[in-house]
Amino acid sequence: MNKTGVGASVIKPDALHKVTGRALFAADITRPGMLVGKVLRSKVPHAIIESIDILEASKFPGVVKILTADDIPGPNGVGIIIKDEPVLSKDKIRRIGDALALVAAETEEAADAALQLIRVVIKEIPAVFDSVEAMLPNAPLVHNNNNNVLNVRKIRKGDVEAGFAAADVIVENRYLTQRVEHAYIEPEAGVAEYDGSMVTMWVSTQNTHFDRKEVARTLGIGVNRVRVIQAVTGGGFGGKLDISVQCYLALLAYYTGRAVKMVYTREESMISSGKRHPYIIDYKTGATKDGKLIAVKITIIGDTGAYASYGPAVLTRAAVHATGPYEVPNVYADAYTVYTNNPMAGAMRGFGIAQMAFAHESQMDQLAEKLGISPVEIRLINCLRPGSVTTTGQVLQHSVGILATIEQASGQAQTICENCWEWGDKSMKKRGLGIGCMWYGIGNTGLPNPAGAVVDWLDDASVNLMVGCADIGQGSDTVLAQIVAEELGISYENVTVVSADTMVTPDGGASSASRQTYISGNAVRLAAIEAKKIPLEEAGIMLKQDRANLTFKDGMVWANGQPTGVTVKAVLASCRMKGKLTLGSGWFNPETTGLDLETGYSSPYATYAFATQVVEVEVNTGTGQVEVLKIIAAHDLGRAINPVLVEGQIEGGTSMGVGYALMEEVITARGKIQNPNFSGYLIPTVLDVPEVTSILIEDAEPTGPFGAKGVGEPSLIPTAAAIANAVFNAIGVRIFSLPITPEKVLSALTEKKAQS
Amino acid sequence: MNKTGVGASVIKPDALHKVTGRALFAADITRPGMLVGKVLRSKVPHAIIESIDILEASKFPGVVKILTADDIPGPNGVGIIIKDEPVLSKDKIRRIGDALALVAAETEEAADAALQLIRVVIKEIPAVFDSVEAMLPNAPLVHNNNNNVLNVRKIRKGDVEAGFAAADVIVENRYLTQRVEHAYIEPEAGVAEYDGSMVTMWVSTQNTHFDRKEVARTLGIGVNRVRVIQAVTGGGFGGKLDISVQCYLALLAYYTGRAVKMVYTREESMISSGKRHPYIIDYKTGATKDGKLIAVKITIIGDTGAYASYGPAVLTRAAVHATGPYEVPNVYADAYTVYTNNPMAGAMRGFGIAQMAFAHESQMDQLAEKLGISPVEIRLINCLRPGSVTTTGQVLQHSVGILATIEQASGQAQTICENCWEWGDKSMKKRGLGIGCMWYGIGNTGLPNPAGAVVDWLDDASVNLMVGCADIGQGSDTVLAQIVAEELGISYENVTVVSADTMVTPDGGASSASRQTYISGNAVRLAAIEAKKIPLEEAGIMLKQDRANLTFKDGMVWANGQPTGVTVKAVLASCRMKGKLTLGSGWFNPETTGLDLETGYSSPYATYAFATQVVEVEVNTGTGQVEVLKIIAAHDLGRAINPVLVEGQIEGGTSMGVGYALMEEVITARGKIQNPNFSGYLIPTVLDVPEVTSILIEDAEPTGPFGAKGVGEPSLIPTAAAIANAVFNAIGVRIFSLPITPEKVLSALTEKKAQS
Repeated sequence: MNKTGVGASVIKPDALHKVTGRALFAADITRPGMLVGKVLRSKVPHAIIESIDILEASKFPGVVKILTADDIPGPNGVGIIIKDEPVLSKDKIRRIGDALALVAAETEEAADAALQLIRVVIKEIPAVFDSVEAMLPNAPLVHNNNNNVLNVRKIRKGDVEAGFAAADVIVENRYLTQRVEHAYIEPEAGVAEYDGSMVTMWVSTQNTHFDRKEVARTLGIGVNRVRVIQAVTGGGFGGKLDISVQCYLALLAYYTGRAVKMVYTREESMISSGKRHPYIIDYKTGATKDGKLIAVKITIIGDTGAYASYGPAVLTRAAVHATGPYEVPNVYADAYTVYTNNPMAGAMRGFGIAQMAFAHESQMDQLAEKLGISPVEIRLINCLRPGSVTTTGQVLQHSVGILATIEQASGQAQTICENCWEWGDKSMKKRGLGIGCMWYGIGNTGLPNPAGAVVDWLDDASVNLMVGCADIGQGSDTVLAQIVAEELGISYENVTVVSADTMVTPDGGASSASRQTYISGNAVRLAAIEAKKIPLEEAGIMLKQDRANLTFKDGMVWANGQPTGVTVKAVLASCRMKGKLTLGSGWFNPETTGLDLETGYSSPYATYAFATQVVEVEVNTGTGQVEVLKIIAAHDLGRAINPVLVEGQIEGGTSMGVGYALMEEVITARGKIQNPNFSGYLIPTVLDVPEVTSILIEDAEPTGPFGAKGVGEPSLIPTAAAIANAVFNAIGVRIFSLPITPEKVLSALTEKKAQS
Repeated sequence: MNKTGVGASVIKPDALHKVTGRALFAADITRPGMLVGKVLRSKVPHAIIESIDILEASKFPGVVKILTADDIPGPNGVGIIIKDEPVLSKDKIRRIGDALALVAAETEEAADAALQLIRVVIKEIPAVFDSVEAMLPNAPLVHNNNNNVLNVRKIRKGDVEAGFAAADVIVENRYLTQRVEHAYIEPEAGVAEYDGSMVTMWVSTQNTHFDRKEVARTLGIGVNRVRVIQAVTGGGFGGKLDISVQCYLALLAYYTGRAVKMVYTREESMISSGKRHPYIIDYKTGATKDGKLIAVKITIIGDTGAYASYGPAVLTRAAVHATGPYEVPNVYADAYTVYTNNPMAGAMRGFGIAQMAFAHESQMDQLAEKLGISPVEIRLINCLRPGSVTTTGQVLQHSVGILATIEQASGQAQTICENCWEWGDKSMKKRGLGIGCMWYGIGNTGLPNPAGAVVDWLDDASVNLMVGCADIGQGSDTVLAQIVAEELGISYENVTVVSADTMVTPDGGASSASRQTYISGNAVRLAAIEAKKIPLEEAGIMLKQDRANLTFKDGMVWANGQPTGVTVKAVLASCRMKGKLTLGSGWFNPETTGLDLETGYSSPYATYAFATQVVEVEVNTGTGQVEVLKIIAAHDLGRAINPVLVEGQIEGGTSMGVGYALMEEVITARGKIQNPNFSGYLIPTVLDVPEVTSILIEDAEPTGPFGAKGVGEPSLIPTAAAIANAVFNAIGVRIFSLPITPEKVLSALTEKKAQS
């Protein structure tokens, strides 16, 4: 085995710089003569803009430039799916936080003063804040559309009414989920400069190559005139997929000819960035008496706020995954993406599925209860297997590890409490176990999403690797280097990575959709294979062997499975002596098909990750407080390239899941966030985070790099679902809306007492 | 024709930033907390180092670190051919300027004070300053070798004694050439920092990839732990091929953990950098009465000073090119590279051939005179043609344009003076015409010297190009972008170049040997062809055409030679819709063979450039002053990728040639440079530079990118030779040593008068 290659828990090379403060986040970057950039934002949710007067503000000492929508050289709109969000609002305000004007000033004080001095005359108009109301015919329209429904994603499989007719038990409920904040440690920030020909930008981002296109479009210049370099990024979780500071900085640098820095305050970050979509889920499940799921009908309404962001993709993923990791013959689902004047919702770790898991896993437990079988049993009966047909009609072939995750997570749970799965067990009144399962398609849903890479061997057989993939803390630089090290049979320390710099790395797509290990992982492997061609040939010449019999391993050439004593370094030296360079490029795009608009029929993902989490909670029936004591997380990720990083993902994801389940909620009133700071928006602290036992199921995916799939999002998705089930298991009441606050617990307990 | 592709005189994109001062040279780069680095240098030419005491200097306020040879983690020696130059001298000093210690301090003042306070105890030993003396058995030895002769390059072709026996006329002379300075506008400079794992360096250099290896070796770390980025470079001319500040900066950054800047003073630059080798050339030529060269015997002694630098390569090139661009059946040449305690000599534009051209062209004119034929005639009789066999036995096949350059340069000269070629013409007493021819093998001599490139199409069909090739002002970024634009059928503005950054660009080798247009030019073309594969396939699908019939031209797809109306941009968009990335890498290494050690037999270059220059001079017989009035420069460069840049090279090279011919000389006394500044070292000013008429002969080289060879060095090589011949033509005296100073002219005139 390559001691630092695939399967080794090598240390992230960026770790030391981060803990010692040496890492340069965007806010740490300075450039000569740099200005401060600020954004004037709307304080009302829906209004017509009558005028914006910058005259007085422009005269304030130290103010260098003020820009409004009229100054934008290119089209005034950004967005990954539809470009419905103005860079700067011109005619209309659609949410609190809409950008109205930009200021560049010599000092922060001057910039703040200018913001105060810009005179904006608006006329407020009726707004809509409820996603159901927004769908009504006479609702105020957020955009110039016929209605506020941006998209409806339909899934049609089998005959759902016939299915329900054949069902022995039916469970039907409405589930509500809340709007939540990514709460990355670093707010949005960047620095840009313009040299008369090229805009160069260092920015906190999850997708430099998308940013580049948006900036180029906004400035009306060629894509090759924009260089976006990812600054060290303090978390993203989907929230840094949208454009934030990028176009503002580019415009200010373009107009001033000077470097400009912009760093959002936490409040500005929370007000302007996309949130996890709040869902209204109507969920009806039918099963036969032997526990087989037979029909599912689901309606999902997702409030995407004032702009699309990733909304339609989030709701599409919700619809595709709506049944959970179970085979259901008859499915009918509609997922609505709806505009309101609320804060924008967009991509967030779990990407629309964490909400669904809460619903489908609550449904499964209720069905089990009705059928008198255990939560584990009902899942084992229904879970996907090789050969299963998914909701979109895709036949799963390989690496369908959900069964193993259920078995192993529930097996491990026996060490907590042997009989807790027995309903009504009173021996642990306030404690309970809950189970949650999930599946997650790796990569974008039925869309092209390639990634590229370049590998260049250096003279001493070390390697430079260029990848577009942004390492936002998840460790992709490390994992991709390990894949290259494994493929080339060299030590991981000998692979140096340059990532996410649009000038020198090929497009890697977004660090989202748990796709980078699988997609960029394949790309770097292909580039490494290409770069290995000439050295293998050369080794063949040196050893008088057919190159087909040769591999590189542990820095050595191996022939027919045996080390030869010739080092890879010697091979590279021999190449150089003959003037042979040894580099290669590669790219990978997963094989998928797009969704049929009427039925959703498709193979939208090349592969899926699976997981089961079991949680133990303790509920204080006096205060309503729920404490998560333990999480057992079994994840089928194909192959763990770096097990410690996988565990880090699982521990981080489950922590986020605990927050989602129990405490996190962006509270709004008439479109205004009431808790836009960490004083009012609570996230788990180290004291709230339980012990996590990670179980890695390596059901190798044949198309994955060394079998790998992904784990970034799966780690979060089932946690809240399992916690909700555990709460029920502990105290016999089921909460149908997230978060499961003490107030809801107490109120449910009171109601239950009243009913009994 | 692609309006900005091959053959177009597009403007260098770096030009504006250079003239407006926006370009960041190394001295302009600042990093947070940056220290000042300085070097303590020897003031004696040859000595034993007994001790270096840094104690007092270390205590000086503001001094952060002082390093001596004992602090070097890796091997203490640098050099392209042999690593005979210590980074810091430990036991022995071999020249004035040897580095003894390094200082890093908070301020320049503190650094200077520390230099004063370091106590060096040495014992001077006998030194040698004359290259002939240095070859004698009892000469002081500069290195621990048996003698001071570092290398002897031998050329043996035919039977030279039989050749002379058959000769009707013989001309035999000794020629002396001087040591000259590159006189780049920017002295050596750089900034380095070390983050605990990686050394990053911005430096003025001609070869980042060589620098990287030398720094890694000195620090004893992997090559992938060093990133060398070329700062904007203010000229090199060969002098920035050697290591200057690189290892010093790396050591200081490594030990202090802080950024360090080092900028040489002009004096330090002149004392420490390599010079053009002074030669002693004994040259004997025999010809038959019909003007055919029949035998040449040459001995060359090149004084390489205290260290090899490029010395053996310079003298090898001298030997290979010793006969000039003429076919000679019998050749015997020995070229000695000799160590002395003089300033180091190394690579300089012309690389050992400018000296030889002065000799062989002087010989040709003297032969012509003896034979009673014109200088043009003797050259036309003897010049190389397709099918000719060179001195090393190489049969020339294609692109042998010397004949055309002679014809066109001499033809153009008729416009100056119709009968000036007639010897003894008294109608222009003080004016004269002279002709000089040259040949120059493109690329390194019989050695591998590959270059690589990566081409990445962006979504809007613009392109990023990554090349290792350092643009030192010659315009390689521009030329390489034009080649890519031509190959891809897009506009040159749509190609953005990143060059000479070892982290993200493949090895390009040195910007030397007039090789980059040919070698990196081929590499970028191959990378572009690779990157074009998928788009061509896609265009084939779109147009239902065999991709073999398709090309990209003017941003359009052409089928069977006709535009189709489908844009390349649309093709790229179609690729992206299908998730296809479109990038490619490529590399090129010229096909050559190494020199036989006893005979020089080889094909050391894949192709040769040729040139003829005709100059008109006016000699003031009262003062001895020579003024160059006009230069006609006819260059066979295969293909002019960018004619204006070619003209720039020719104008720059001939100016340098004027300086070499008439005024430039590094004057030394006991190894000490007497004129280490531009007050004492004279270079041509704008008033010394004549009108230059460039004639571009495009005798396409089949292996070159669009036929191109090179022109950087050829432009300088024949100038001094032509001037020497013109001086003779004007005043009837021949000067056998460069530079042709007024003193030498007057003294020769006096001697001539005495003889007559």
